[in-house]
Amino acid sequence: MIKKMLADDLRLKWNRVQQAMKATGADGCLLSIDVNLYYMAGRIFSGYFYLPADGDPFFFVKRPNGLSDEQVVYIRKPEQITDAFAERGIKKPEKLLLEADELTYNEYMRLLAIFNPKETANATTLMRTLRSIKTPWEIEQFRISAKQHDKTYAEIPSCYRPDMTDLEFQYEIEKRMRQNGSIGLFRSFGTNMDIFMGSVLAGDNAATPSPFDFALGGEGVISLPLGANGTALKNGMAIMVDMAGNYTAYITDMTRVFSVGKLPEQACKAHRVSICIQQEIERMAKPGTACSELYNLSLRMAEREGLSACFMGTEQQAKFVGHGVGIQINELPVLAPRSKERLAPNMVFALEPKFVIPGVGAVGIENSFRVTESGLEKLTLAEENIIQLC
Amino acid sequence: MIKKMLADDLRLKWNRVQQAMKATGADGCLLSIDVNLYYMAGRIFSGYFYLPADGDPFFFVKRPNGLSDEQVVYIRKPEQITDAFAERGIKKPEKLLLEADELTYNEYMRLLAIFNPKETANATTLMRTLRSIKTPWEIEQFRISAKQHDKTYAEIPSCYRPDMTDLEFQYEIEKRMRQNGSIGLFRSFGTNMDIFMGSVLAGDNAATPSPFDFALGGEGVISLPLGANGTALKNGMAIMVDMAGNYTAYITDMTRVFSVGKLPEQACKAHRVSICIQQEIERMAKPGTACSELYNLSLRMAEREGLSACFMGTEQQAKFVGHGVGIQINELPVLAPRSKERLAPNMVFALEPKFVIPGVGAVGIENSFRVTESGLEKLTLAEENIIQLC
Repeated sequence: MIKKMLADDLRLKWNRVQQAMKATGADGCLLSIDVNLYYMAGRIFSGYFYLPADGDPFFFVKRPNGLSDEQVVYIRKPEQITDAFAERGIKKPEKLLLEADELTYNEYMRLLAIFNPKETANATTLMRTLRSIKTPWEIEQFRISAKQHDKTYAEIPSCYRPDMTDLEFQYEIEKRMRQNGSIGLFRSFGTNMDIFMGSVLAGDNAATPSPFDFALGGEGVISLPLGANGTALKNGMAIMVDMAGNYTAYITDMTRVFSVGKLPEQACKAHRVSICIQQEIERMAKPGTACSELYNLSLRMAEREGLSACFMGTEQQAKFVGHGVGIQINELPVLAPRSKERLAPNMVFALEPKFVIPGVGAVGIENSFRVTESGLEKLTLAEENIIQLC
Repeated sequence: MIKKMLADDLRLKWNRVQQAMKATGADGCLLSIDVNLYYMAGRIFSGYFYLPADGDPFFFVKRPNGLSDEQVVYIRKPEQITDAFAERGIKKPEKLLLEADELTYNEYMRLLAIFNPKETANATTLMRTLRSIKTPWEIEQFRISAKQHDKTYAEIPSCYRPDMTDLEFQYEIEKRMRQNGSIGLFRSFGTNMDIFMGSVLAGDNAATPSPFDFALGGEGVISLPLGANGTALKNGMAIMVDMAGNYTAYITDMTRVFSVGKLPEQACKAHRVSICIQQEIERMAKPGTACSELYNLSLRMAEREGLSACFMGTEQQAKFVGHGVGIQINELPVLAPRSKERLAPNMVFALEPKFVIPGVGAVGIENSFRVTESGLEKLTLAEENIIQLC
């Protein structure tokens, strides 16, 4: 039932979850959110993935979709899961992991009534923690995404025409993303984290706060208060392109800055500081490094250059300088002052020290990195200097 | 704080919610999900919209965004909402409406601990019911969307080139959607209802079941199991285009069929039956009509033509023939056999009697309708016959 190339990868993931379950005394983990299904089953289906602390998982499937295996049980509603347990002599879990930060309240309460466990724990927290350490297959997916991401970014200068708006520029980039294999859909974690394919921020729109918890904001349009807002691209303006690298299910994150004409020295300097911050982090980061230290180091370097007031925004400053990436754009770890996490081999994260320069726009870069046994490996490799469009 | 053109519309909505609250003895309604915020506040912000059963609402805002009004209270966390109530001598609600089908379990439990109400009720159910009856301003938004939707669909033949795939065809349509003002982001209600801008189904891919609860499926690509899958467009193939009408926050829904060369008579006939079903529903539907009857009538007509086995799919048949549209693509009412709803003036719904013809693809049409005082008004007006691309 599972594509052979994926089978080993899935088994590796199941083993990790089972180890974590045993360590905390959980007997069962029930998952039904798209990203967790994709992670654990290699596909999104309508239904539930149940993993006991020992043994093989069950796929409880609500819609016919070709799944067939002794571990696959077709159901119409979740109440039939425990019936299937009873028929097969499977013990109901006493300590059950449920996706408490992803299921709706009513979905969660329904599952609670069905399983009636003695104890519950948060599958969202566990899965997000485990998902932060990528498997070899996942790393391979990132490499495919990164390559296509680089290819699209190399085509960005060809998207520009004089007198266009930020939105028109973005439409051209979107088209090239799709032609290079982007799945389009951009997955993020959390309520009200809407984004469409990424963000293009031109000029002072980069300073406009957004309600969403992305690094920078932008006014957006209509009912999407993020990103491009119809700003006419003008001479002396920085255009920050932060469009998704969703060319596989695994998203690379990369930001580059383009300019109409030349930018003032203050903006160019801030851009160089962003590259210096990245270089410094590439030098010092390795397994064991505190994620908070990556933020603190970035902020200190920004302060030393007199740029702290425009670091990660002006009106609203994001309190992080990077974040894990994966099936969702905002996975663990978070590179934030209060982060308790430490880098570990095969974490994949985006580092995005950015500055907003009033009257110019946003500058800085973002790249996706894999944590190796001894340091960092940069996955996204497009040209990092400010690229002048005309 | 609110754009003047919207102020009357918002007050109308607040009054409706307050009337419903009084009718059920609720004293307060707390909303924080994007679509409910847009509906009640005219904008998505980071925070909470609180409406008491009597009096003006409060905006509890977590991020600076220019909102300023005596009803706006800046907070860092939801725990400060009840502090703000205490400071202002506002009574805590005894019966509180919370978005039980939208908030995550943990978000809901946190709010419950903060407010500690004697009783709760489901704000999701209430808001979805009220949102099904559109206001004059909302109808105007639909008209704008419909006009741009028509414009994009008229451009679809220019998207076709010989030897392209369904995905390549879709990319061209997406580009025109964006150029005509689509916001891109496609909002739907429910867990795991992922969709990117709409669906293009070519040939037998139309029969592939999807885990998601849309009218038809399609294999999709990678981690998006819906819609186009890279099918090469070939002679004799039907291509069903069901791309979003999200040109304002209010989404019109429209489907048209294009063909490569001529389609076999069986497919042409099924398409005509779809148009006949629509005509029959246009003749009989009016305020008071049971939504279930619209489904039953459609199914009866399909049966009479010997098409019930391919009505709304083959391998997997959707058990509805239409649905309300609004800020989300799947609002109330649902035109399904067990629907208890009846049409009412200013409901806006999509009617989509579709057939999947093996070896050909999907045929049929979909349009968005407003319920008037005496019948239906069709909002989406693109050519309804099968359009031959070459």
